[in-house]
Amino acid sequence: MVIVMQRGAAEEQIQKVIDRLTGEGFDVHRSTGVERTVLGVVGGKIVDHRDYELLDGVKEVIRITQPYKLSSRTFKPEGTVVGIGDVRVGANKVVVMAGPCTVESREQIESSAAAVHKVGVKIMRGGAFKPRTSPHTFQGMGEEGLKLLHRAASQRGMYVVSEVMDHTQIPMFLEYADILQVGARNMQNFNLLKELGKIRKPVLLKRGMSATIEELLLAAEYIMTGGNHQVILCERGIRTFESATRNTLDLSAIPVVKKLSHLPIVVDPSHGTGRRDKVPPMARAAVAAGADGVLIEVHPDPDKALCDGAQSLLPEQFEGLMKELQLIASAVGRTL
Amino acid sequence: MVIVMQRGAAEEQIQKVIDRLTGEGFDVHRSTGVERTVLGVVGGKIVDHRDYELLDGVKEVIRITQPYKLSSRTFKPEGTVVGIGDVRVGANKVVVMAGPCTVESREQIESSAAAVHKVGVKIMRGGAFKPRTSPHTFQGMGEEGLKLLHRAASQRGMYVVSEVMDHTQIPMFLEYADILQVGARNMQNFNLLKELGKIRKPVLLKRGMSATIEELLLAAEYIMTGGNHQVILCERGIRTFESATRNTLDLSAIPVVKKLSHLPIVVDPSHGTGRRDKVPPMARAAVAAGADGVLIEVHPDPDKALCDGAQSLLPEQFEGLMKELQLIASAVGRTL
Amino acid sequence: MVIVMQRGAAEEQIQKVIDRLTGEGFDVHRSTGVERTVLGVVGGKIVDHRDYELLDGVKEVIRITQPYKLSSRTFKPEGTVVGIGDVRVGANKVVVMAGPCTVESREQIESSAAAVHKVGVKIMRGGAFKPRTSPHTFQGMGEEGLKLLHRAASQRGMYVVSEVMDHTQIPMFLEYADILQVGARNMQNFNLLKELGKIRKPVLLKRGMSATIEELLLAAEYIMTGGNHQVILCERGIRTFESATRNTLDLSAIPVVKKLSHLPIVVDPSHGTGRRDKVPPMARAAVAAGADGVLIEVHPDPDKALCDGAQSLLPEQFEGLMKELQLIASAVGRTL
Amino acid sequence: MVIVMQRGAAEEQIQKVIDRLTGEGFDVHRSTGVERTVLGVVGGKIVDHRDYELLDGVKEVIRITQPYKLSSRTFKPEGTVVGIGDVRVGANKVVVMAGPCTVESREQIESSAAAVHKVGVKIMRGGAFKPRTSPHTFQGMGEEGLKLLHRAASQRGMYVVSEVMDHTQIPMFLEYADILQVGARNMQNFNLLKELGKIRKPVLLKRGMSATIEELLLAAEYIMTGGNHQVILCERGIRTFESATRNTLDLSAIPVVKKLSHLPIVVDPSHGTGRRDKVPPMARAAVAAGADGVLIEVHPDPDKALCDGAQSLLPEQFEGLMKELQLIASAVGRTL
Repeated sequence: MVIVMQRGAAEEQIQKVIDRLTGEGFDVHRSTGVERTVLGVVGGKIVDHRDYELLDGVKEVIRITQPYKLSSRTFKPEGTVVGIGDVRVGANKVVVMAGPCTVESREQIESSAAAVHKVGVKIMRGGAFKPRTSPHTFQGMGEEGLKLLHRAASQRGMYVVSEVMDHTQIPMFLEYADILQVGARNMQNFNLLKELGKIRKPVLLKRGMSATIEELLLAAEYIMTGGNHQVILCERGIRTFESATRNTLDLSAIPVVKKLSHLPIVVDPSHGTGRRDKVPPMARAAVAAGADGVLIEVHPDPDKALCDGAQSLLPEQFEGLMKELQLIASAVGRTL
Repeated sequence: MVIVMQRGAAEEQIQKVIDRLTGEGFDVHRSTGVERTVLGVVGGKIVDHRDYELLDGVKEVIRITQPYKLSSRTFKPEGTVVGIGDVRVGANKVVVMAGPCTVESREQIESSAAAVHKVGVKIMRGGAFKPRTSPHTFQGMGEEGLKLLHRAASQRGMYVVSEVMDHTQIPMFLEYADILQVGARNMQNFNLLKELGKIRKPVLLKRGMSATIEELLLAAEYIMTGGNHQVILCERGIRTFESATRNTLDLSAIPVVKKLSHLPIVVDPSHGTGRRDKVPPMARAAVAAGADGVLIEVHPDPDKALCDGAQSLLPEQFEGLMKELQLIASAVGRTL
Repeated sequence: MVIVMQRGAAEEQIQKVIDRLTGEGFDVHRSTGVERTVLGVVGGKIVDHRDYELLDGVKEVIRITQPYKLSSRTFKPEGTVVGIGDVRVGANKVVVMAGPCTVESREQIESSAAAVHKVGVKIMRGGAFKPRTSPHTFQGMGEEGLKLLHRAASQRGMYVVSEVMDHTQIPMFLEYADILQVGARNMQNFNLLKELGKIRKPVLLKRGMSATIEELLLAAEYIMTGGNHQVILCERGIRTFESATRNTLDLSAIPVVKKLSHLPIVVDPSHGTGRRDKVPPMARAAVAAGADGVLIEVHPDPDKALCDGAQSLLPEQFEGLMKELQLIASAVGRTL
Repeated sequence: MVIVMQRGAAEEQIQKVIDRLTGEGFDVHRSTGVERTVLGVVGGKIVDHRDYELLDGVKEVIRITQPYKLSSRTFKPEGTVVGIGDVRVGANKVVVMAGPCTVESREQIESSAAAVHKVGVKIMRGGAFKPRTSPHTFQGMGEEGLKLLHRAASQRGMYVVSEVMDHTQIPMFLEYADILQVGARNMQNFNLLKELGKIRKPVLLKRGMSATIEELLLAAEYIMTGGNHQVILCERGIRTFESATRNTLDLSAIPVVKKLSHLPIVVDPSHGTGRRDKVPPMARAAVAAGADGVLIEVHPDPDKALCDGAQSLLPEQFEGLMKELQLIASAVGRTL
């Protein structure tokens, strides 16, 4: 923390700030310039810097340490690879997770599973509990959906990623899912995050619609503080003034996360754009920018989808996209 | 819903859209202009309009009905008044809810209670479980804090509003709180909202940091659909590019909500601005704009507060603010 | 500026940073902690802090001085009062500027002038050149409009505020306008700002739609650097994700500006909300929050207005608003 | 335009709306449902839809036609190719425009020109007049800089793109520049846009920091309405709450623009991210998403750059990027 005193702050005011700092266990380095005094504050404790800002004579307080530790690359310089069976997220191979937005029926999920398995997908996605903005829309099949998803995937040697809605559902998900997904609306559901810190399965953590990258890393920190270090971050679009797309996919989050953190990051262009025809270009862009994987919604008959059909690819479109992504992955020195 | 066909859409394409609409139970009114055809679609069902947008020949689909019903002023023209004992939120009298950000100790909460009670506050606020961005900061006293808060308030004839973190905590809160608060980060925690629909106590629903007013009303709809119509909305700032304040307090939400909905709306300038010196002007502005109440953080010794001291008023500042608010309330034809 | 070195930065890296700093004329204060080294940099020069951020071993660079000087309250502690004849903006009396969005005809502007003059308005607004998002809409009457506006106002003893579109129009505006307005889209038209620095008439500077308050003060700095210190700032709404209002009126800008700068600030709730029925509550809120004035659009027949009729008040609505604002001004210890 | 009447609107109210519409020359198609009446309004005139929204009995007014025409793909289905000598922007070959942020000296610009020419760049960028947020920073070399840039480029057979600050500078730019750039801050400087409509040289139009894609196309419309159809659009980042990057580069603008408009679109990852190490991944992503070109800042000695050195690539970094972009271009079926 650095505390900048006002021009002409009284010695007494400066001393009072220093006393409070040392009282809280900080080391203080004082720099007295012609115009103003600056206090360099060193120490590990996390305080609300606004508390100091309100002291008399203080002009500004500047935070200099990142508030996250375990998720920081400073803490662990080499990249983390999260393993799910033989699949490794964060390694050279770009990982594609695909499947329908939501499980609707046994037929639909079997046919979806067949379609994505056919082109080499190893991790299948699908929602059983759906967080919907309106209470008057389809809310998902629940545990029954989870079972169908698990069966369709495991019979074909695929793993399952699915969204857990709150901490009471964790035991149920541990039975059927290989990766537990935290949705964007739950990124700061701290009770859920804390409980996920206690399990030993990977967590896919989606960035909240209005969350900064720092807040995403702090949310990961909640999980990691509990002892579970298998966290995969996911960029899925932030809310901005632009309404031409559902959200604004912030692909620069990829290089930013890569510099700040050792955790792998994947991208969800289906939710990020909300329109089928925008998914392939943005999936290609994500891989070109260095994403460790992509989540793609695929539905055997999107026109009849109960949820988000508009952003789901048809199986043949998905097949075409896989080929495109292979070319891009190869252009950036990776495989797919 | 209105469907605008592309200029030169084929008759066959138009017919296919009409067939799908009537198949889903809608009434369709067709307008054929020189340049394009427009389909007026009437019916109560809620569909994902993007599904129609992807049909061949369709240029644009426009939603014309609000997706919320119970919270809409169309549904219930007169304003709702939520009663907590003898306090009525949404009536002529502007309601002030005040207290510390969080319960820290018996002494702190007793002294806070005395301070706010002294100037006529009827509803006391205080957090027992704190949703904190970082896991390395104070997380609240838990149930013990709730008990202390309840005792300090009820001994002085005040009611309690406190934030419930997830649905498993509802029974505990029913014991100690008179209004259950849903925090901004939980505005779309749908499992929590659904369970709050089953209780018969008022809910104070805070607007999410990146939630539109329509989404706030849809969140209220989740609660009301369960049968609990005692919902108080709360504007507490949205996230924008401006960083001079913690959030951007959107006071125009007040007249917007008043037009769209019958539910009462209160404003939290403490979280909305994040700085003590900005709280009084924004509290005055909220009442001037027509808010039914304000939530103010007050702490007997903000410098020592474990949470958000920087945005808490000192008791004497709060006393001054109460006098200012009385003058403003009176200027807009209300009492306080 | 404060430069935070990475944990474990080499002595050689630290020395290289210090050398560059002293080479650029800065005083450097070095604080060596157990974990990291922090350099306090003192000096008046403005540099791009990102240049230092890219040096080897540097973790973060933090700016500590405001980049604006003349507009800063540090530079001039007492508030500036801008005088236009006998009207004083920034003094105790809240100033109302009113009139139609645009000058449409002699009849319209005369009848508008009569309407606002009748209730005591001293400064009349009206656009002659209109910056319109679409080239296919009415672009204003030009110089002829300016003449009509000037005549209608001056015959009734009112002053004129009108928007100048670029620096070549300044001489024309000096003839007809008493306050030259810089529109939101031109807030960073630096050639215009520089030329306005050379005149000796007040400038009303509107905040850009995506401008931070700091950038608004920097735009004022451009004008003041030229020698013209008569700048009135104007909050008129920023662009956010919320679409229920045309823009999000950021009223907390009022107390923020009052703390950072000595310049007066007024609010334009007509553009800020874009809807007639939202204007009175937000005008009241602006005065309650401490604004030095408000700009209100009034039109004798809004249904026939060529521009922005939807946000213009009818004369009788405006008369009612003036009475409300008097009550609010009095409640905050001011007159109107 | 579609006008949705309120539930239970009186026949008289409906008739009044219809009368006004037909009076303004519109064709009206009336749909009467059980619950409400919807008016389909057809006609070419552009009106402010809010005017109708305020009529009695009206619930909502929905715009159905795009407000831009000449820039629309409906108007011209095949993509536009803008030619600058033998360079064609919008064709299969991805075009790289590169050079320093600003012209600083003859040596600097010659060495920059040599560096970018060496790796095959055909269009050189460089600023002579700099729009800087603060008046206390370097403002560019002016016409002298333009001359140096023109000489350095033309001697090597390269073309010049440079930013014109206002309409009075157009004649000067016509002499030295091959593409006239409109900066983000000037995207809605309508006087400038109108004058650029009268010239017969290509215009590179940058998206404003808070401009929607629709507004970008409307700005292009201003230029095209004057008769100049050689417009190249440029995405360079929008302003959001995220501060980890200078702006949020909105790459989904590429597929959105490609669908709505026939104009070519290029991307500026240097301004979009503001940091050198983020430029290569975002440049790759832009090409992968379908951009017709990229603008890259390159400086022979970024540490000494007078402007934006932090986002400029070193010549050897740029050379590496060119190779990466060739691989990506080839992966999406294009050349570079």
